[in-house]
Amino acid sequence: MTRKVALMIMALMLPMLASAQKQFTLEDLNFGGTNYRNMIPQYRTIAWWGDTPVRLSADTVWTINPKTGAEKFLFTRAALPTDGNLSALSWAEFPYAGKPIVKLSDGDYLVLIDFKARKTLFKMKNDAAVSEWHPVSRNLAYIEGDNLWVARAEVNMAPPSSVTTPAQRQEFDDHMRVQRLTTDGSRDIVYGQAVHRNEFGIEGGLFWNPQGTRLAFYRMDQSMVADYPLVNVPELDDTTRVEATPAPEKYPMAGRTSHLVTVGVYDFATDRTMYLDAGDPTDRYFTNIAWSPDGNTIYMQELNRDQNDCRLVSYDAVTGKRLKELYRETHPKYVEPQHPIVFLPWDATKFLMYSERDGYNHLYLFDVQGNMLKQVTSGSWVVMDLLGFDAKAHTAIIASNEANPIGRNLYSVNIDTGKRTRVDEGGRGWHDGSLNPSGTMLVDVYQEPDVPRNIAFADTRTGKTTRYFTAPDPWQGYTVPTYECGTLTAADGTTPLYYRMVKPADFDPAKKYPTVVYVYGGPHAHNVDAGWHYRSRSWETYMAQRGYILFILDNRGSENRGRDFEQATFRQLGQVEMADQMQGVKYLQSLPYVDTTRLGVHGWSFGGFMTISLMTNYPDVFKVGVAGGPVIDWKWYEVMYGERYMDTPQTNPEGYELTSLIPKAKDLKGRLQIIIGLNDPTVVPQHAYSFLKACIAAGTQPDFYVYPGQGHNMRGHQSVHLHERITRYFDDYLK
Amino acid sequence: MTRKVALMIMALMLPMLASAQKQFTLEDLNFGGTNYRNMIPQYRTIAWWGDTPVRLSADTVWTINPKTGAEKFLFTRAALPTDGNLSALSWAEFPYAGKPIVKLSDGDYLVLIDFKARKTLFKMKNDAAVSEWHPVSRNLAYIEGDNLWVARAEVNMAPPSSVTTPAQRQEFDDHMRVQRLTTDGSRDIVYGQAVHRNEFGIEGGLFWNPQGTRLAFYRMDQSMVADYPLVNVPELDDTTRVEATPAPEKYPMAGRTSHLVTVGVYDFATDRTMYLDAGDPTDRYFTNIAWSPDGNTIYMQELNRDQNDCRLVSYDAVTGKRLKELYRETHPKYVEPQHPIVFLPWDATKFLMYSERDGYNHLYLFDVQGNMLKQVTSGSWVVMDLLGFDAKAHTAIIASNEANPIGRNLYSVNIDTGKRTRVDEGGRGWHDGSLNPSGTMLVDVYQEPDVPRNIAFADTRTGKTTRYFTAPDPWQGYTVPTYECGTLTAADGTTPLYYRMVKPADFDPAKKYPTVVYVYGGPHAHNVDAGWHYRSRSWETYMAQRGYILFILDNRGSENRGRDFEQATFRQLGQVEMADQMQGVKYLQSLPYVDTTRLGVHGWSFGGFMTISLMTNYPDVFKVGVAGGPVIDWKWYEVMYGERYMDTPQTNPEGYELTSLIPKAKDLKGRLQIIIGLNDPTVVPQHAYSFLKACIAAGTQPDFYVYPGQGHNMRGHQSVHLHERITRYFDDYLK
Repeated sequence: MTRKVALMIMALMLPMLASAQKQFTLEDLNFGGTNYRNMIPQYRTIAWWGDTPVRLSADTVWTINPKTGAEKFLFTRAALPTDGNLSALSWAEFPYAGKPIVKLSDGDYLVLIDFKARKTLFKMKNDAAVSEWHPVSRNLAYIEGDNLWVARAEVNMAPPSSVTTPAQRQEFDDHMRVQRLTTDGSRDIVYGQAVHRNEFGIEGGLFWNPQGTRLAFYRMDQSMVADYPLVNVPELDDTTRVEATPAPEKYPMAGRTSHLVTVGVYDFATDRTMYLDAGDPTDRYFTNIAWSPDGNTIYMQELNRDQNDCRLVSYDAVTGKRLKELYRETHPKYVEPQHPIVFLPWDATKFLMYSERDGYNHLYLFDVQGNMLKQVTSGSWVVMDLLGFDAKAHTAIIASNEANPIGRNLYSVNIDTGKRTRVDEGGRGWHDGSLNPSGTMLVDVYQEPDVPRNIAFADTRTGKTTRYFTAPDPWQGYTVPTYECGTLTAADGTTPLYYRMVKPADFDPAKKYPTVVYVYGGPHAHNVDAGWHYRSRSWETYMAQRGYILFILDNRGSENRGRDFEQATFRQLGQVEMADQMQGVKYLQSLPYVDTTRLGVHGWSFGGFMTISLMTNYPDVFKVGVAGGPVIDWKWYEVMYGERYMDTPQTNPEGYELTSLIPKAKDLKGRLQIIIGLNDPTVVPQHAYSFLKACIAAGTQPDFYVYPGQGHNMRGHQSVHLHERITRYFDDYLK
Repeated sequence: MTRKVALMIMALMLPMLASAQKQFTLEDLNFGGTNYRNMIPQYRTIAWWGDTPVRLSADTVWTINPKTGAEKFLFTRAALPTDGNLSALSWAEFPYAGKPIVKLSDGDYLVLIDFKARKTLFKMKNDAAVSEWHPVSRNLAYIEGDNLWVARAEVNMAPPSSVTTPAQRQEFDDHMRVQRLTTDGSRDIVYGQAVHRNEFGIEGGLFWNPQGTRLAFYRMDQSMVADYPLVNVPELDDTTRVEATPAPEKYPMAGRTSHLVTVGVYDFATDRTMYLDAGDPTDRYFTNIAWSPDGNTIYMQELNRDQNDCRLVSYDAVTGKRLKELYRETHPKYVEPQHPIVFLPWDATKFLMYSERDGYNHLYLFDVQGNMLKQVTSGSWVVMDLLGFDAKAHTAIIASNEANPIGRNLYSVNIDTGKRTRVDEGGRGWHDGSLNPSGTMLVDVYQEPDVPRNIAFADTRTGKTTRYFTAPDPWQGYTVPTYECGTLTAADGTTPLYYRMVKPADFDPAKKYPTVVYVYGGPHAHNVDAGWHYRSRSWETYMAQRGYILFILDNRGSENRGRDFEQATFRQLGQVEMADQMQGVKYLQSLPYVDTTRLGVHGWSFGGFMTISLMTNYPDVFKVGVAGGPVIDWKWYEVMYGERYMDTPQTNPEGYELTSLIPKAKDLKGRLQIIIGLNDPTVVPQHAYSFLKACIAAGTQPDFYVYPGQGHNMRGHQSVHLHERITRYFDDYLK
């Protein structure tokens, strides 16, 4: 073919190419990709200024009329006073209803600015990595050099008579303003941080009372906990370091010695710190700290190490004395407290508490004497969140999956009558919400299977909604696969399970497709819901574009389906989950267009454990697998999560043996790639290394890859590399 | 086809199958394989009892008549006295010529047994991992709890008058017998071990004088050396450990702070320890410790950190005083002392010293005043070993490659005349030898390209040899590839380089074969020699059986070819080596039967460095590579070896930059698998991790595997797994 002819053919083809749909790249689809931000549904950042919704951008704030959605300019960043490092307005908070005050940071300082007068009203140094500021007292608690410090917003102490000069007065004030509460903080003695490895809903370790005058805080002694020896490899552009260095991580493994947690309380009025008189902390979990509305009493859920006996206990915040056990819940498997109690804003003697005691997560009304007054919600569905209250209407605003097991809708619930009213827009899909302080108006941010993202305002009393924002389809112009959702019956023969299937855009039922099962399978998570594309992970779209079918099933053990659905896995993690996943495989095998000789499986973390479990328990079913950050044996996983589901290696040896993948190493037949972060502090590298050891001893040949410097998941652009890697593995061996 | 017909066909085929040649497995060919011992040429273990050769098996010892090869029964293990744990006779030593005394171990004890009288003559506890016993004095030096101890064979000290009872006398004797010489031994302060990371020919740290009355020893202070954070993953059958534990390794990296070495001397007569007055040890290497025949003087080679200035210095072993600098050698690149001086047995005022000063490794005669009396050997070949002397004949017995650059032959050299006479059998191949004490008889253990192993006795005066053992071909009955050897011209246009090519047994020049270059390329090693099959590694045979051609070339920088050949790589390791390897590739490209679109490369350690260098510098030439334990950047390699060839990152930044594979990560195109031992203390994992980091950042995709618990090389059966893994990679992507 001459060059001229070739050019002519190209010219003919060009218009066709131009009109063709665009193809996705991993830079488009992966969350670390360079074009990812353009490919996800657009958003609006909305905060509440009292009951007024405000839209935040980096440089401008607008008020929004929730009845019409109309925006009105409020102020710009450029107009605000600053010392030169004012944070973007996207981070703005409006802590005082009705007052034109915005809270921002300015370099190392926290500032309150009157945005109308354009004047800084308050300024306080706040450069610690961990800190909590209280808007009422304006006091700050923070951790510096492993110790707990407080900074007082106002100092009205009379100085001693020796203080006479202005310089002495300043020194006295500075001393009073900033005060160190502890001295023995270290890597072993940890103050003010989340304890119990963030299980039981624990997210932090500093707890202000509502007045901001008393501070409760966690103290954790982990000196007796074994270190896991992680290693830091210097960054390639680090000119100051040459050698790799140890990065030990305190990591209590199942059945091993765990840390000791106590709860301290500092009182600004008396300048005293004391500890709650909760008894010997050995093998106990202190969780879900809550304050009474008057700021004088502390409530805490106390769980035994076996996690089957939970008590709600109150303490005098002045003396630290134990006042009363208000409630006790036990279960032969486990009880898992995840939410602090919440007091009714219109009655300081009553509070709501979550419990799964009837088999589903519901709200119960208690009085402070510990009397259970009523079950507020009930039914074979779960309360997913308590967004707040409308005090005047005596309603709580909640999220639940009452309408659809894979959905999430927003309801107002009348505490007096129990009457529930759906208040979101459309009543379908997956709704996140943010409530205004008086509880009368919701921002309803939602997706539906064919709706990328809508934002509406919803009146919580009338249920009337106003559309504020409709995100355009970010995949307009691309060749998009099809996303389907359905149910199958679990291996118990009765329980419906939800699955998602993703098919290539040019799907032809007469062809046979290699098919990859993506799996997580563990507790506190789900993969299939009523969000956009049934919450398909974008890698599924990428794989479908390459000619694969993707199949994703939420097995028993996953969240939002009630206690027994979740607890079916107790003491034998992975077994019921596999049985259910194999129901999915049976379904796939019934489909003429699924090439059952080319089945793959991929998952991360618990899903990595599931991937290797499936590859080794069903070596003739799965040809190729990629397991990320996999648990290999639960004895190397941590105490809190691990023992909840598995008890200890001492008390459940048969369960640990049954679920361990070490003895399964010999059964590996297909191609399996294991991928970990070298610095994974969650599923430590010992899991993968031990499995490799077992495979080497057994003569089986998994593949392996490691991301140095990365933790349990790959961050940023490394995630693109990772997914290119995962994809290539299926292309190499499954396609 | 009916079952009956199928059976008939099988019946017809069976005799053919039975007569067909056998195929190799990795269990046959790999050194860790279950059948490997049957597949390597047989051996005989021979020791000297005075001038009488004795053959050792586990249970029996025979004397051998070296003139006829006839064996005569001497004694059995069963006949010897024992406390129950007598070692196999394969470990027997006969330290006293003419006396019927065998040295063995019996459990934790070293024993001397009169094998004629069947009586234990001497017994001494010897259970330390590091120890040195001296047959003349029968004293023992050993390391226990990081400190240096000595045990005296005989105690003749008069006890103090307070010692009166036999028990007190026993206690006194025990105290005198065993004595601790040091107290500050630790991981930081290391006594009696090899120092300078075993470079410069250093193999141990305890040096007896010829009388066994004085002990020189190394002391190394490495407290200032950075730790490399290796990690130990517990063995899977270890029931006592759960968590992985840190296993820090003192590892001085190029250009970084190194350890301090001093040399102590303990004198049994005076019970005193003192240190040689060698001056500040900072950035100096103290190597090749030797004693004068009278045991009163110590000789040491002292090298500067730059390794280009080496001095032979003598010390008074009584006072520690520096006596004299006897010799100094400098070179613009480097000087590398690797052998202690050796005194002439017939003249205690003269010694032989190795030097590469004329460009090749030769022997020089010096007197103790430091006068160089003569160059004993010379020529464009190298002395490879000095086996000993025939004192009466004034000859030294040496090994050299004078006859063949890739061979090794044994010669007697008359020290007075310089006359050399070859004394081995056949004069071809690769000869290892062991000389009797009087130097008149050699055991000549040798291979030739088509001789698996022969053992002969050689009279060092007449050169007359007697064949004692002829190993049968262990591969009889197998389909064996062909092994060829030839030379090419190096990239300098003049230097001949030796290569080996291995071709499938059914090689057909009309076909095109995938071809794998196996490479090492670093100093102090070679791959091609005149041993059996030209020293082909057995994996090459395995690969040839699978249809690959294998090609192995010893580039400039490798051993036995003289100083300039070796030093061509100075300050830019890998560059000249690659240029030479590409000469090999050019040759392969000229061969019609080599499929140049399917070229692979594999190497370990320096060969791993070469593999990745070749893959990234010639990304269009090599399609597939497997790099084991690779150096990635010489700045992470250790001081002693690294700075010899590369100087420091501070003094040779351009060399480090040129040779670093970090900037090459972006150029990776083909499939590259990197394999390391997780516990590699030689090329630490930081190399591979850093390369992965660079690849991840650059968006290239190497593969990776790690052997947990393994060091720089895989031991035992894990090596079978490794080679199955390496083979599979080429099968997957090159075949």
